[in-house]
Amino acid sequence: MRRFLAFLLLLCLPLLAGAQTLHSPDGRLALRVVVPSPDYLPSYELRRDGKLVTNGLLGLSLETNGQHIAYRSIRALDSARIDTTWTPVWGETRAIRCQYHELALTLGESAGPPPVGLIAGTVVVRFRLFNDGLGFRYEVPAQPGIGAVRVRSENTSFRFPDTATAWWLPGDYDTNEYPYTRSPLAEAGYRSAVRAPEIGLQTPTAPDDRTLQTPLLLKVPLAGKRNLYVSLHEAAQVDFPAMQLAFEPTTDGKVLRAHLTNGPIWPQVFAYLQTPAVTPWRTIVVSDKATDLLASKLILNLNEPSKITGDVSWIKPQKFVGVWWEMHVNRSKWSYSDSSNLKLANTDFSKLKPHNRHGATTANVKKYIDFAAKHGFPSVLVEGWNVGWEDWYGNWKEEVFDFVTPYPDFDVKELQQYAASKKVSLIMHHETSGSVTNYERRLPAALDFMQAHGYPAVKTGYVGRIIPRGEHHDGQWMSNHFVRVAEEMAKRKLLIDMHESVRPTGLHRTWPNWLASEAARGNEFNAWSQGNTPAHETILPFTRLMGGPMDYTPGIFQIKLDHWNKDANQGRAVHTTLAKQLALYLTMYSPLQMAADLPEAYEARPDAFQFIKDVPVDWADTRYLTAEPGEYITVARQDKNSPDWYIGAITNEQPREQTVRLDFLPKGQQFEATIYADAPDAHWDTNPMAYRITRQKVTSKSVLKLKLAPGGGAAVRLAARR
Amino acid sequence: MRRFLAFLLLLCLPLLAGAQTLHSPDGRLALRVVVPSPDYLPSYELRRDGKLVTNGLLGLSLETNGQHIAYRSIRALDSARIDTTWTPVWGETRAIRCQYHELALTLGESAGPPPVGLIAGTVVVRFRLFNDGLGFRYEVPAQPGIGAVRVRSENTSFRFPDTATAWWLPGDYDTNEYPYTRSPLAEAGYRSAVRAPEIGLQTPTAPDDRTLQTPLLLKVPLAGKRNLYVSLHEAAQVDFPAMQLAFEPTTDGKVLRAHLTNGPIWPQVFAYLQTPAVTPWRTIVVSDKATDLLASKLILNLNEPSKITGDVSWIKPQKFVGVWWEMHVNRSKWSYSDSSNLKLANTDFSKLKPHNRHGATTANVKKYIDFAAKHGFPSVLVEGWNVGWEDWYGNWKEEVFDFVTPYPDFDVKELQQYAASKKVSLIMHHETSGSVTNYERRLPAALDFMQAHGYPAVKTGYVGRIIPRGEHHDGQWMSNHFVRVAEEMAKRKLLIDMHESVRPTGLHRTWPNWLASEAARGNEFNAWSQGNTPAHETILPFTRLMGGPMDYTPGIFQIKLDHWNKDANQGRAVHTTLAKQLALYLTMYSPLQMAADLPEAYEARPDAFQFIKDVPVDWADTRYLTAEPGEYITVARQDKNSPDWYIGAITNEQPREQTVRLDFLPKGQQFEATIYADAPDAHWDTNPMAYRITRQKVTSKSVLKLKLAPGGGAAVRLAARR
Repeated sequence: MRRFLAFLLLLCLPLLAGAQTLHSPDGRLALRVVVPSPDYLPSYELRRDGKLVTNGLLGLSLETNGQHIAYRSIRALDSARIDTTWTPVWGETRAIRCQYHELALTLGESAGPPPVGLIAGTVVVRFRLFNDGLGFRYEVPAQPGIGAVRVRSENTSFRFPDTATAWWLPGDYDTNEYPYTRSPLAEAGYRSAVRAPEIGLQTPTAPDDRTLQTPLLLKVPLAGKRNLYVSLHEAAQVDFPAMQLAFEPTTDGKVLRAHLTNGPIWPQVFAYLQTPAVTPWRTIVVSDKATDLLASKLILNLNEPSKITGDVSWIKPQKFVGVWWEMHVNRSKWSYSDSSNLKLANTDFSKLKPHNRHGATTANVKKYIDFAAKHGFPSVLVEGWNVGWEDWYGNWKEEVFDFVTPYPDFDVKELQQYAASKKVSLIMHHETSGSVTNYERRLPAALDFMQAHGYPAVKTGYVGRIIPRGEHHDGQWMSNHFVRVAEEMAKRKLLIDMHESVRPTGLHRTWPNWLASEAARGNEFNAWSQGNTPAHETILPFTRLMGGPMDYTPGIFQIKLDHWNKDANQGRAVHTTLAKQLALYLTMYSPLQMAADLPEAYEARPDAFQFIKDVPVDWADTRYLTAEPGEYITVARQDKNSPDWYIGAITNEQPREQTVRLDFLPKGQQFEATIYADAPDAHWDTNPMAYRITRQKVTSKSVLKLKLAPGGGAAVRLAARR
Repeated sequence: MRRFLAFLLLLCLPLLAGAQTLHSPDGRLALRVVVPSPDYLPSYELRRDGKLVTNGLLGLSLETNGQHIAYRSIRALDSARIDTTWTPVWGETRAIRCQYHELALTLGESAGPPPVGLIAGTVVVRFRLFNDGLGFRYEVPAQPGIGAVRVRSENTSFRFPDTATAWWLPGDYDTNEYPYTRSPLAEAGYRSAVRAPEIGLQTPTAPDDRTLQTPLLLKVPLAGKRNLYVSLHEAAQVDFPAMQLAFEPTTDGKVLRAHLTNGPIWPQVFAYLQTPAVTPWRTIVVSDKATDLLASKLILNLNEPSKITGDVSWIKPQKFVGVWWEMHVNRSKWSYSDSSNLKLANTDFSKLKPHNRHGATTANVKKYIDFAAKHGFPSVLVEGWNVGWEDWYGNWKEEVFDFVTPYPDFDVKELQQYAASKKVSLIMHHETSGSVTNYERRLPAALDFMQAHGYPAVKTGYVGRIIPRGEHHDGQWMSNHFVRVAEEMAKRKLLIDMHESVRPTGLHRTWPNWLASEAARGNEFNAWSQGNTPAHETILPFTRLMGGPMDYTPGIFQIKLDHWNKDANQGRAVHTTLAKQLALYLTMYSPLQMAADLPEAYEARPDAFQFIKDVPVDWADTRYLTAEPGEYITVARQDKNSPDWYIGAITNEQPREQTVRLDFLPKGQQFEATIYADAPDAHWDTNPMAYRITRQKVTSKSVLKLKLAPGGGAAVRLAARR
């Protein structure tokens, strides 16, 4: 089989022999595309300052009309140098520079007809080499006789040295909510992953356990205590399955090969394309400083520009509160009654006996609206407002929710008027239960309903096995679904926050109304058993967030959860200090940030709450000051709408002091720093809610020493003196 | 495995030992439900006049929450006697009598908890015994702890003697457009089926070739030259896969077992149910006269009453013409241009170079509107009006059609006005190409479009592999789709005609706006290579039509198709005489009948065309006068809206004379008979277009002798003298 694929996908170089080399704009990265001999697959090699970063094979196995497509010779070489700057609708910085050198290899058949069973075709491999890494993709142009194309496998691979340390999630087609495992790369895989029995739906990647998800973070030691940080992921995953990574069986854990998420017709076909077609970009971000990895815009730069042209004033980065955490901490429920086994079509929900623990009641939502209005939050999310929660999960049931019928105790019109009178918006909630056919056919009516009732934004959810049965969250069909939903929302000027979606790949550049996704293990897991480790939030920005913003739902003040429900939450707690929850608004970049805790929790600590009220969600500038995956992150950001700066610092279970030089501040300008820090005796486990707020005047010459408790953090507001 | 299933599904009779017996209202049919011993599956036996018709096993293998459901004892026996009459919105008769004796066995667990791995449940097997046959189904009531239920297999079987002759289609999950094969039952199966290479998508039923589709017709010889005619099928196939029949491997072709159409998760689960749930009815229609089989209303009687309540005046049985056959005979095309590999989303169809053979042009449609208006047809079907036909088939492509964008040469508004001015309706065409997810998400807009442009009816099509990929035309998911579409159409008072759907099971009683389906090998196959045998139309009413009306598209006058296009249609012809085409309007009952040929064909033979103009599509009464499957059918029907009667008679390749006693006419009333008969030298192959029209006065005492040429037929109008 290997020999056949090699034969199939071979680069012969009758015209252009040997290797092609490309350098990054700063000259430090070098890419070589190598064609060793006709018997082997083409390959690439990426070096930084002359040192090997990774190398591997190239190629897609493609079929059209039952014939394999042959493209074994270089027909053309094109290159380009790009240096532009673009302005995101929202982001970590006001402008983004996009600078790369490009090499496009056009592969085809040069002489005579191909062997029997093969059809001659053209495939372009396009490389874009930035100062901070490489992106490449495969393109199948429109060409005579080749319209519909099926992808039978992808041969792209990545080789890393034995010494690489990895932070990884086990391969899975349906969930990315595992905790991260850190291990030598060669030991990674489902069987050695941290167990996560709390994830109900796990579909470990076929064919075996030796697969990993992306973004995959690697740290490779170099000589002299230096390291390379490498992030493997993809950009612009559209109309193509998500890439996972499988260890090549014979390579002792050194070589990872692209493994595409199965569709229902596995193992025959992974993707159905129509020419002209392009794959997502395979991305390798490389840095010798961990902070530079966090600052990389490579994935955004490989995505298409925004398709939302004209007025974008309706795309509003924002903070929100919601009827949500109170369900997680067992104070109320999504459901309205204790009935079970209900059928949506023939249940009169007004006749059910309420259990009187329903969260989304008119009265309770008004309480949140009042709270939002009082404290300046523009939006209130309400989950559990619509009928169906009595029987919504676990049965692979198609008719779950209709997205338009409220429970009897949720008065849509009254709340619409009440929210409007308080100048607060309600955020719609569309939990699909994974029943996507049901959601798609009800979507037009659901969006009409949103617009008729003044909802400018929606949080979607995909908890459960996907219908169409046989499809997966990370497959091609679902990748199209997620983009389609973003597009439908954009047409109606609606914002969206997707939960349980495929992990992002920078598509928020193209669809900036797609403010955030969950697509990772959020703060909510702290409300259940095992929770998240204190290191968790120091890993996420190096992994999941490489693809885009996360709705992590920070801001939990009531760290010990038995406060809310002694019986149900015994021993449960968020695994950070309170001050670290504040810092997360900085370290976990997102244009959509929840103040996730209950109003009571905030009203009990108005001084700390002030920080959440103050912190922006859209930035003019960002500086990653210190960072080490799994250990700590310190970041400073400048508000897009004022001269104020903010700093967030977090640590894992180790206490530390972070020295922050304020030399990013404009010279001569005075700032008042408000420092929200862990109290001296604070500790994520034993004393998490002890914090201390101090104030001092600072300038660009000042140095702050932020003391972080075990599992702690610090948040700083630097308000320019007016 | 057999032992395990036996164990699982066992009927123990601690309370009610032995066998239960039920008789039909007329006493001629006897059903026994037998429980031989705890080691065997329960079984049933059906006798007519004491002679065995069939017997077999009973049971569904069900699972909930990973446990098999045990129901091994009779907990209750209920019986009922029903005799009612109901009025269909349209049909073969003005009223339908529904008379049966019912036996319901409630099965459960009587003593103590079931063995480990099993969960106690309740299942009802409900039998309804009519004078003309048996229907039974399985019901899983709502019950504590059993909500979501998965069907792992169905054990229902049917045993027939060695001597049975069968008319059958090979088992297939995606097409029912095979020609019928006649053979001893024991020899039936894909490998011995008549080959049909013209069917592009064939998915022979797993696990092997020894499967058949329903409706399955059997003829079983009895002593004294008598025979039993038996039709096996199902009624009310809703939320359940279509049943096919698989030969039990060890029974020498005597025992057929229910085999459910695979879903994408085969072989684990065939259906996902939620209690309360019922399966479709398994039906066995039995008769000693072939004509009685044709007259059976058993399947309709087992369906639910109409869900369309209130005004039904919009449900109009009708004849129609259309821009359709001209594409089949290569006079024009569905497509607009010769371009290929187009993407719906980014193609400007107005920029394509037209091939100038497009059928659905404004001018051509006006011609059909004029023709319809002149000759009294209320409707004109137009296929190929909407963009996408350049690249619509064979690539399992999702974004095929949008159902709202016309080709540049089809002026929707102008045609809307023109049709309205002529009091003619246009019939919408929705070809899905099997891409059902695409159709479902676009359906609301497509129906809005229909209503905005005055289309009261739609013909749908499902040519191609189904998307969701892995689903099949005959599976549970698609059965829900078809019903959902009928329901959506009903909500908007739209009529529907489904092509390439699952074969019908009487659901037009419940959704009378669902006028017809294709779901079999229609007249159109005569436009391609092999075509239909002269016997084909004498088999369809005994098989496919048992489940409901077919849009067969009769009325082809220009039998030799090279008339339309010498090069493309060389040697192609419809395999009947012209007179037989007229007779089909009677022998193939449908409330929706096309006059399928081109206007030119009808205008060339206005005398014969008069019959198509006169013949009704809704009936007060129907009498099947003579019939033998594969040989001949003669039927008389009385117009629902006048005292006139009509007679149709057809034969296979054998010439015959049919003697028709008009004793069904009201005594004393005079009628003028117009007889459209084959000319004496007519022959389906050598002289198919020779016909003779004669007139005579008749009364109830008259006897007509209808001479049918080889492959011929006769049509008679009996107009009451006013």
